Amino acid sequence: MTDRKRPRLKQGAGGALPSFLVMDVIRQANARQRSLPAGAPGVLRLEVGQPGTGAPALAVEAARSALGRKLALGYTEAFGLRSLRERIARHYREFYRADVAPDRIAVTTGASGGFLLAFLSAFDPGDRIALASPYYPPYNNILHALGMRPVVLEATEASRFQPTVPMLEALRDTPEGLPDGLIVASPGNPAGTTLSRRELDFLAGYCEREGIRLISDEIYHGLNWEAPPDTAATPTGTAIVINSFSKYWSMTGWRVGWMVLPPDLAGAAERLKQNLFISAPHISQVAAEAAMDATDEIEANAARYRRSRGLLLRALPEAGLADLSPAQGGFYVYARLPDAAEDSLGFCERLLNHHSIAATPGIDFDPRRGHRFVRFSYCGAEADIAEAAERLKIFDPRSAG
Amino acid sequence: MTDRKRPRLKQGAGGALPSFLVMDVIRQANARQRSLPAGAPGVLRLEVGQPGTGAPALAVEAARSALGRKLALGYTEAFGLRSLRERIARHYREFYRADVAPDRIAVTTGASGGFLLAFLSAFDPGDRIALASPYYPPYNNILHALGMRPVVLEATEASRFQPTVPMLEALRDTPEGLPDGLIVASPGNPAGTTLSRRELDFLAGYCEREGIRLISDEIYHGLNWEAPPDTAATPTGTAIVINSFSKYWSMTGWRVGWMVLPPDLAGAAERLKQNLFISAPHISQVAAEAAMDATDEIEANAARYRRSRGLLLRALPEAGLADLSPAQGGFYVYARLPDAAEDSLGFCERLLNHHSIAATPGIDFDPRRGHRFVRFSYCGAEADIAEAAERLKIFDPRSAG
Repeated sequence: MTDRKRPRLKQGAGGALPSFLVMDVIRQANARQRSLPAGAPGVLRLEVGQPGTGAPALAVEAARSALGRKLALGYTEAFGLRSLRERIARHYREFYRADVAPDRIAVTTGASGGFLLAFLSAFDPGDRIALASPYYPPYNNILHALGMRPVVLEATEASRFQPTVPMLEALRDTPEGLPDGLIVASPGNPAGTTLSRRELDFLAGYCEREGIRLISDEIYHGLNWEAPPDTAATPTGTAIVINSFSKYWSMTGWRVGWMVLPPDLAGAAERLKQNLFISAPHISQVAAEAAMDATDEIEANAARYRRSRGLLLRALPEAGLADLSPAQGGFYVYARLPDAAEDSLGFCERLLNHHSIAATPGIDFDPRRGHRFVRFSYCGAEADIAEAAERLKIFDPRSAG
Repeated sequence: MTDRKRPRLKQGAGGALPSFLVMDVIRQANARQRSLPAGAPGVLRLEVGQPGTGAPALAVEAARSALGRKLALGYTEAFGLRSLRERIARHYREFYRADVAPDRIAVTTGASGGFLLAFLSAFDPGDRIALASPYYPPYNNILHALGMRPVVLEATEASRFQPTVPMLEALRDTPEGLPDGLIVASPGNPAGTTLSRRELDFLAGYCEREGIRLISDEIYHGLNWEAPPDTAATPTGTAIVINSFSKYWSMTGWRVGWMVLPPDLAGAAERLKQNLFISAPHISQVAAEAAMDATDEIEANAARYRRSRGLLLRALPEAGLADLSPAQGGFYVYARLPDAAEDSLGFCERLLNHHSIAATPGIDFDPRRGHRFVRFSYCGAEADIAEAAERLKIFDPRSAG
């Protein structure tokens, strides 16, 4: 044997990710709730990104019925149950007036599974993928974990925090040039803003011409407060679309979503899916297919978000938070703190400790500028948002410190 | 704008994986079944790797009950329901007499999710991970997809197709030296062989001394026909253990498994899991926890596999397939073809087309030597295995060509 020193066991660089800060906020909110005397007004959870409602009744019933029929519920095909893929294709016809073949549709293990498949089928370690800040933190973190390189475009209110062609063009003359990919999210998290059909087409056309693979996160579609959403699944057919049953259909913990694949990536994605996932959970696929018919229940949820949004958009300016991103969709408001306020970590702590309102500091979404922003979610119970609106009226946005 | 040519959109090299050959076999078996006249004896499915039985009744009942109580079934903590993690820790005490803290246990989206997390938390793109052939194809394919490099150790009957320290030592003086990791599977797929406690400890101790991260695939534990299985979760505490509810607990399509993490990787794995998966399916976690108490039903399944194994181990030699790997566990027999037979693709085609028995050619598991091997699975219905044993009696192993 050799005389070299005992080597250290490997750890992957991908593990060196930041924590999701929102997890710490959730922990602090739980601790605050436990510390409150019995009968005191509870902590209002405006930090969470998942609906308080469960799956639609039709979905629950379909799952119960499948269990009652003693189906074996084994693996499905890698891309999912044929009937669900066809139901999703019908959704594109009815909801978007778009023609998307079931063969391009892959049922995924939530949007999370969709992002992994999208990145692995389209990119290699070292590739550069652009995204606008503020962004959903896992985009950045998944790319890091896979050895890919996020290229952060600092978006502002001028583009409603969305990426633009000039932002991409500005990369052309940098040493590394244009990126290999671009992630867009409309409605986005945390800013809640959307891209119009024209803006989306302009970005998509540019990306196609320049060899930039477009990935369109459409998981908040259906929760649009100004105009119906537009999908990147058509017309070019070169973008990857990610969608999910978690938000509009209120099925977070079921871990089921889908992607629309460009024809040139479908084969690669299917082989990757066989090897990396085998298939999405069978019972969740059954439930998801039924959920797509639960329009009344789902739209009632959406109407609730819309009312909660209205309450929050009136209450926040009364609390001195007047500089809000246009909450065009999804269920978030992204607020810029007034100059007199402390930074967002301190602001959120004070909001929690003095008024029992939990909200998320912006630094999860924008490491550089997020200390001046806070995200409020309005997907919780309507009464909680109403109560939060009341409590915010007496809140002093200036720093206590 | 520039005058350069329109660039091609990126495709990831990870997408250039081989298809799972078993998927083609399944397709061919389905086609053969459809081509048979009504009333003719059907195709016997000895190619599949999933139990024909569904989840245990207790698991199904727990899932139905959760749905009936209208639980929201949102995301769980990234590492899973606390009660399930504690139940798994109890399983280690009762089943292995091993003390594994719940904090080291992460509930995963099947073993598939466990492998992704294991590789990403322990390794980087470019790292070299050893595994013995014949192997479960996704090991190799997931590593490729992540830009990591499999180092295939050609194992033989001499080590019951398991890797050994001398095989690893032989790498020391190669240009790249010892690998960064080693995957072991006991019982393994396709060979169905196991490592003894002594062999496992010897490998684990060597890996720890040499800085090689050990990943132990234990998903067939509980299906052991000679001696109880041994886990790599103890004693060193530096290995990553992967387990699953898919095989012993017969819950493939529920996509739920677990991993035992070494303390030095637990933090990284938790952050990766938050970002890459959020959590395993909630309802599957509820069902899995109940499944762990369904010992009678699960052991009845195991007794069925044991009887089917006996039938197959008698029938295959009668069919001229006398050179079998010792089927010590799992539900596979790996058979070397007689010299007079055609290669495994032709052999399996003939078996399917003349005798309506589907089996898997070895080339999925061993690209270089697998053309001389065939895998038979005995996890299907007992009557089907018995019928296959009858049909094999009149099979001529020599090539028809």
